[in-house]
Amino acid sequence: MRKTPASRKAAARQQVFDALGTLKIEIPSWGFADTGTRFGKFYQDAAAIDLADKLADAGQVHRLTGCCPTVAVHVLWDFKPGEDPAAVAALAARNGVKIGSINPNLFQDQIYKHGSFANPDPAVRKAALAHTLHSVELGKKTGSRLLSLWLADGINYPGQDNIAARKERVAECLAAVHRKLGPDQLLLLEYKPFEPAFYATDVADWGMSCIHCKKAGKKARVLVDTGHHYTAQNIEQIVAWLLSENMLGGFHFNDRRYADDDLTLGSLDPYQVFRIFNEIHQHAHDNGGRPADIAYMIDQSHNDKPKVEATLQTVANAQELWAKAALVDRDALAHHQKNTAQIDAEELLKTAFFTDVRPLIADWRRANKLPPDPLAAHRASGYEQAAAKDRAARRKALGITQTAGGYA
Amino acid sequence: MRKTPASRKAAARQQVFDALGTLKIEIPSWGFADTGTRFGKFYQDAAAIDLADKLADAGQVHRLTGCCPTVAVHVLWDFKPGEDPAAVAALAARNGVKIGSINPNLFQDQIYKHGSFANPDPAVRKAALAHTLHSVELGKKTGSRLLSLWLADGINYPGQDNIAARKERVAECLAAVHRKLGPDQLLLLEYKPFEPAFYATDVADWGMSCIHCKKAGKKARVLVDTGHHYTAQNIEQIVAWLLSENMLGGFHFNDRRYADDDLTLGSLDPYQVFRIFNEIHQHAHDNGGRPADIAYMIDQSHNDKPKVEATLQTVANAQELWAKAALVDRDALAHHQKNTAQIDAEELLKTAFFTDVRPLIADWRRANKLPPDPLAAHRASGYEQAAAKDRAARRKALGITQTAGGYA
Amino acid sequence: MRKTPASRKAAARQQVFDALGTLKIEIPSWGFADTGTRFGKFYQDAAAIDLADKLADAGQVHRLTGCCPTVAVHVLWDFKPGEDPAAVAALAARNGVKIGSINPNLFQDQIYKHGSFANPDPAVRKAALAHTLHSVELGKKTGSRLLSLWLADGINYPGQDNIAARKERVAECLAAVHRKLGPDQLLLLEYKPFEPAFYATDVADWGMSCIHCKKAGKKARVLVDTGHHYTAQNIEQIVAWLLSENMLGGFHFNDRRYADDDLTLGSLDPYQVFRIFNEIHQHAHDNGGRPADIAYMIDQSHNDKPKVEATLQTVANAQELWAKAALVDRDALAHHQKNTAQIDAEELLKTAFFTDVRPLIADWRRANKLPPDPLAAHRASGYEQAAAKDRAARRKALGITQTAGGYA
Amino acid sequence: MRKTPASRKAAARQQVFDALGTLKIEIPSWGFADTGTRFGKFYQDAAAIDLADKLADAGQVHRLTGCCPTVAVHVLWDFKPGEDPAAVAALAARNGVKIGSINPNLFQDQIYKHGSFANPDPAVRKAALAHTLHSVELGKKTGSRLLSLWLADGINYPGQDNIAARKERVAECLAAVHRKLGPDQLLLLEYKPFEPAFYATDVADWGMSCIHCKKAGKKARVLVDTGHHYTAQNIEQIVAWLLSENMLGGFHFNDRRYADDDLTLGSLDPYQVFRIFNEIHQHAHDNGGRPADIAYMIDQSHNDKPKVEATLQTVANAQELWAKAALVDRDALAHHQKNTAQIDAEELLKTAFFTDVRPLIADWRRANKLPPDPLAAHRASGYEQAAAKDRAARRKALGITQTAGGYA
Repeated sequence: MRKTPASRKAAARQQVFDALGTLKIEIPSWGFADTGTRFGKFYQDAAAIDLADKLADAGQVHRLTGCCPTVAVHVLWDFKPGEDPAAVAALAARNGVKIGSINPNLFQDQIYKHGSFANPDPAVRKAALAHTLHSVELGKKTGSRLLSLWLADGINYPGQDNIAARKERVAECLAAVHRKLGPDQLLLLEYKPFEPAFYATDVADWGMSCIHCKKAGKKARVLVDTGHHYTAQNIEQIVAWLLSENMLGGFHFNDRRYADDDLTLGSLDPYQVFRIFNEIHQHAHDNGGRPADIAYMIDQSHNDKPKVEATLQTVANAQELWAKAALVDRDALAHHQKNTAQIDAEELLKTAFFTDVRPLIADWRRANKLPPDPLAAHRASGYEQAAAKDRAARRKALGITQTAGGYA
Repeated sequence: MRKTPASRKAAARQQVFDALGTLKIEIPSWGFADTGTRFGKFYQDAAAIDLADKLADAGQVHRLTGCCPTVAVHVLWDFKPGEDPAAVAALAARNGVKIGSINPNLFQDQIYKHGSFANPDPAVRKAALAHTLHSVELGKKTGSRLLSLWLADGINYPGQDNIAARKERVAECLAAVHRKLGPDQLLLLEYKPFEPAFYATDVADWGMSCIHCKKAGKKARVLVDTGHHYTAQNIEQIVAWLLSENMLGGFHFNDRRYADDDLTLGSLDPYQVFRIFNEIHQHAHDNGGRPADIAYMIDQSHNDKPKVEATLQTVANAQELWAKAALVDRDALAHHQKNTAQIDAEELLKTAFFTDVRPLIADWRRANKLPPDPLAAHRASGYEQAAAKDRAARRKALGITQTAGGYA
Repeated sequence: MRKTPASRKAAARQQVFDALGTLKIEIPSWGFADTGTRFGKFYQDAAAIDLADKLADAGQVHRLTGCCPTVAVHVLWDFKPGEDPAAVAALAARNGVKIGSINPNLFQDQIYKHGSFANPDPAVRKAALAHTLHSVELGKKTGSRLLSLWLADGINYPGQDNIAARKERVAECLAAVHRKLGPDQLLLLEYKPFEPAFYATDVADWGMSCIHCKKAGKKARVLVDTGHHYTAQNIEQIVAWLLSENMLGGFHFNDRRYADDDLTLGSLDPYQVFRIFNEIHQHAHDNGGRPADIAYMIDQSHNDKPKVEATLQTVANAQELWAKAALVDRDALAHHQKNTAQIDAEELLKTAFFTDVRPLIADWRRANKLPPDPLAAHRASGYEQAAAKDRAARRKALGITQTAGGYA
Repeated sequence: MRKTPASRKAAARQQVFDALGTLKIEIPSWGFADTGTRFGKFYQDAAAIDLADKLADAGQVHRLTGCCPTVAVHVLWDFKPGEDPAAVAALAARNGVKIGSINPNLFQDQIYKHGSFANPDPAVRKAALAHTLHSVELGKKTGSRLLSLWLADGINYPGQDNIAARKERVAECLAAVHRKLGPDQLLLLEYKPFEPAFYATDVADWGMSCIHCKKAGKKARVLVDTGHHYTAQNIEQIVAWLLSENMLGGFHFNDRRYADDDLTLGSLDPYQVFRIFNEIHQHAHDNGGRPADIAYMIDQSHNDKPKVEATLQTVANAQELWAKAALVDRDALAHHQKNTAQIDAEELLKTAFFTDVRPLIADWRRANKLPPDPLAAHRASGYEQAAAKDRAARRKALGITQTAGGYA
């Protein structure tokens, strides 16, 4: 029976509503702080000073979008030594959010000059492992399920270290971390081809992360940062492979053109993000409708945009592209694929991609008692002006100067 | 006890001699035929017409270099239907060489328009499998140990096919091939990020090849073509990883700047080739001096160079860089690595790389009753002029015209 | 006065109609012939055999789209020696189209092994120049205004030739061509970073083309092929620069991910095409509404898609993205730019990009007595089946075999 | 008359001596300070605190190498407001060096958040211009001939600003700077494709810099930073083009694999550096032996290497590769190029590249009363230990803490 335009429209509406209902996006605490490039930072009055500010900002985002219930935290930047994790969890709760993935910091301390888990010096590896195991404990105490691990390890010059030996050292540390994971905890291992190391990174690509995770144990999964690929690499294919191997743990979303540019998700190549989402919807479709267990996290550097605005824009982009990907007619697609009807298959994707879902998303928001345009609502709320005023005053009181640390 | 300059010199000579003694390089039969780009071929009178010519050319290379005892063959181009493989092996023997790796052709026939092992059409997969199993048999009958498999499979447009389904189909075919391998045979699986498919290649990178090989069985290994990587990817690191996983089967050597340019090995970035060889020597050193079982094969497209000359140049480049890499002082390197003495470690590699090994290699050739300068000897031999005259005449007699097939 | 939704809708409709009315797209004759990669071609019965077929196919495209009045021709492939150009023009006219840009072929003949205009051999340069001047004459006689020049010149190996001397030789030939141009003729010079040469291409980037064109004279302009850039290069910025220098002559449109993949325009990164169009609309806006004189040409390789269908799909993609770019609110954009309101400026572009213009385009087609869905109309017409039947029979009669010329 | 081995050896020695005599390398003051990536810095006790330290370090490098007579300075980091430039010049003189190129800083101040010369705000452009004109004056007063200009200007998001308007603003500022240059001063304009801006950089490639320089006036030249190119771009070809256009002003040397990695010159691809030098020698050869007026400057980020050691290593690498390139037999090369004897031409380059010039360079140093191994001499001198002790104490006294400024 052919569908009428009205029934098609109602079906699309339902698909969008269903899709949006399943998408939870984790916001990084560091997305609300001043960040920059090696050439310096451009400071904002409203940038968060401490974890309380960050959780307040995250709360504002969740209040307006309804889909960002958790906040990724960076242990070094967000937890004070000796602080009670339960108090942190409570602080989050007061802001309407929860502590999400725990990110150990294995790159900032001076001891990590030549690496953390891969360091030739056993004392440094021991310290790195202790910090990571402490992060596992923080996860247990804050109710966070995910340990999100980025190793900045690598070497800058040929010959600097033995690549196979470094691999072995990393494997040993990961195994040690895995042994301490709680029954529900997952270890997510990020990969990155370069920066801050420029000759060889110890976990450089998805294949390396995947091999490490399979060896570490059943609770280890690959973390895909969309900005951590070689130029021209097909990310959606990697996603499809990891899904088929049951090794995809989550994403760090952002956009890029050259390096790890950490730009707003979908700002440069929205069709690629759509295709990534399309693979995820396809995988669920091919597996009886059961969505894979994936953590959708943002990792961007809002160098010059207002932080909360940039986060709201990102979330809106993610929702739009996720909803569009949900609209792909999968039965028709399977039919065209069987017949290698390339143009028809392509057009199905394009039709979904270019469907204007913004009105439907606004409807969904209204149905969920959310503002139909979160960015406009945020601007109308006066939140940023108030934060800027408060935080500027507190910086002054605390003696914090936002002076640009020079490059040299 | 400190070494005297004379004893250091003698030691270097011995290291070079030892290293050269272990390096066997396989030459591809297709390297002697006319090849080109999609915009056409530039023809040479001396280009090989048939397998007999190719084996004669390979014989000339081995006669002059002493290190190219085997010839890779392409089943479609080199074997006539119904031909007795034993006769082919005998023909090779008469030219002083042996049949090396067997390369099925799963891309030229019109049925492969949408892939071979990944094709959605089971009939095509069946045909591709039959051809590959026939290649396995040819290997058994010609005494070749290696089945070298390049899948040109891929898709040109998003949505064209289901990526996970294609992965599954490839895995099934590989398992079927693996089951038929003889006790000494190995399956080498090549990866390539693009070309001839431009959206997604089914075995796009080393991670995909590695996963497929591990699933296929114990006789499957990854084949690294140095031209099949994303720009900026660190090939020597991949080599070190594959060695540490015992998954490196062999190489297709060539050089490139942009895509799969198939230029002469070491013509653009000789230091990279040196570093690849350095990882192989290092792996042997770290494993009690036992070299890994690796097939060193050439895969280049001598579009504009004389074919035999280009092959001799390639072999000389490989020997030089292999010998240089053997000169790295591994004990000193380990010492510097332990202390993260970057500059000192680097300089050890540079010193070895810039050591002029040409005189030592000439000595080694003389000691092995080979001409000290194979290219000069080849030119002096008149081989190419004779081949050009003979082959031009045979082409005329056979009615073969070397007309440029137009691009469009 | 704020606009009502109805008046906004009417305004958008008018903008789309106005934009579509100005977009003429030139179709390449070779897009209807069998093409492929260096690994072979996959043949189609309906592929064009000769120029008559190509003009018929182009006529079909123009009949259905109304925006493809001219056909780019390749002198070597499309003109028979001694043929009367007027007859060719008349043949085009009978198919409802005109001869567009004339493309000399300076790469297929065996004499071009080491280049055409850059060749160290003066005899080869002379032949290349003669062919090009003949093309200029063909342009005059067929009423074509554009000479579209792609030099496949380059070198494969360092040291092979003197780069500055090659530059000088090219400059001399271009000047000689320029002197023979008619008063209305334009010389468009394409650039390309690699392929078929893999070490250095003589006109590698827009800067080189621009310098050559400025030296050649006032009737020389840069031709931008969207597939001829380094990965990550910002094409729309180059377009904006060339426009501001009054040096942009035209485009060869296609899409790509890795190399010069020649995929369907907008199939991989539609937002980039939109941004290119956005710069063109912006330039017109900033110059009193006067559009620049730009030739919009397609240059794709429909390896596996049906040729006419692929062309119709391409034209539809171009129209959609052109219309979307026309919808950008330029006054609001200028306002946001003045205030560096990044998010607001971005959202203006995104809003235009994601506006579903397909219904408006269908309206425009109806208003112009064209089928609202050209691809569906083409499929319903039976054109391809008839062409396939006819051309298969003619091939048989002519003794043409579509056998895959092997790679080696 | 054929040369004897002894006469060839003497000739090579003379070529190396002549070549080294002409190579002066400028050292950047910031190369002695602590630098890092956006993820932090790893501090060194011996890192320079102020300009006095930097000039002392540069003096040490020049004392040991004899080829680094000038020091590039960064106005913001090296000059205190109100400081007498003559005093700075005198300080340099006391350390045995001179002030070299003057580098304005147009990226660190908070006003440059959205650019300097390209900023939409006229007040910011005015400030940037004033700072640059001040730098011009500093050049006059310190006897520096070169103004070295890097514009970090660019935009992060599509639509953020009008590309053509930004181009125009930059052109106006450059013209204003050019007007104030003294009769001997030169303006060098750097280009860079990305970082710190990630969507579009205002002077992104050599073509943009070249167009700007030609418009600015006769005293403007292009500055080539070897790390500022698209991956796979052929830098030596760009160098040859700029030389042929008389537009090459100088270099910022470093090596890279991925982005602007700022690694030690020649550490990853020494053959590329050799080929760049080869083009410079070739240009001199083709122009009656007159070398072009080029400033050879280093711009690296010694993140983890000891600063003075890294500089000495860099200088040694540059001298070696420069000397190797001087050994190319240019008459033979011209002969082979005329005959398109690719292999022979290539082998000439390779032979020169792999000639071990280290003994000849040591001889040249001895002949110039320099230590034959500057790095060893530096280590033996105890300079770094003394500097570390002194600077650590001074930091303590000054209250300077080398704490890693966190990324977020």
